Amino acid sequence: MSEENIVYIGKKPAMNYVLAVVTQFNSGSDSIVIKARGRAISRAVDTAEIVRNRFVTDAQIKDIRISTETLEREEGTQASVSSIEIEMTR
Amino acid sequence: MSEENIVYIGKKPAMNYVLAVVTQFNSGSDSIVIKARGRAISRAVDTAEIVRNRFVTDAQIKDIRISTETLEREEGTQASVSSIEIEMTR
Repeated sequence: MSEENIVYIGKKPAMNYVLAVVTQFNSGSDSIVIKARGRAISRAVDTAEIVRNRFVTDAQIKDIRISTETLEREEGTQASVSSIEIEMTR
Repeated sequence: MSEENIVYIGKKPAMNYVLAVVTQFNSGSDSIVIKARGRAISRAVDTAEIVRNRFVTDAQIKDIRISTETLEREEGTQASVSSIEIEMTR
């Protein structure tokens, strides 16, 4: 894998992140990682599927990894949140 | 893979589905597939992570697949929805 390009999924509509991924592919990247946590995980899957089905039809899902991250809240307690990484290549 | 056991993720709290997966493992299954669509995808990842980290610590994520399903609405139009399948083995 050459340099790794990461697109972080937030709370905006999925098409915002689709555009970011498509732009990175079109600028010559051959590997992009889509990352999301918590409720944004569904949107990460939407993003990858829309890119693959509608915009970059030669792109493939190379790997999908899930994990748990521990965050510290402001008051000092800890919270666990699931995360996903979807690696796409073309 | 012997017989495949499927746990469908809906709108209940994740611990309901965690219990379903743990019960299937404890009844002797060595392969379980967690399936979800749309917004429930985040909960599917939560379910797999909680099972693996807290209850069945020898369980592993064998494969994660994402896809797009086309549903027909009552008025006849079509809607696309992302889906995920998380295959766990022990």
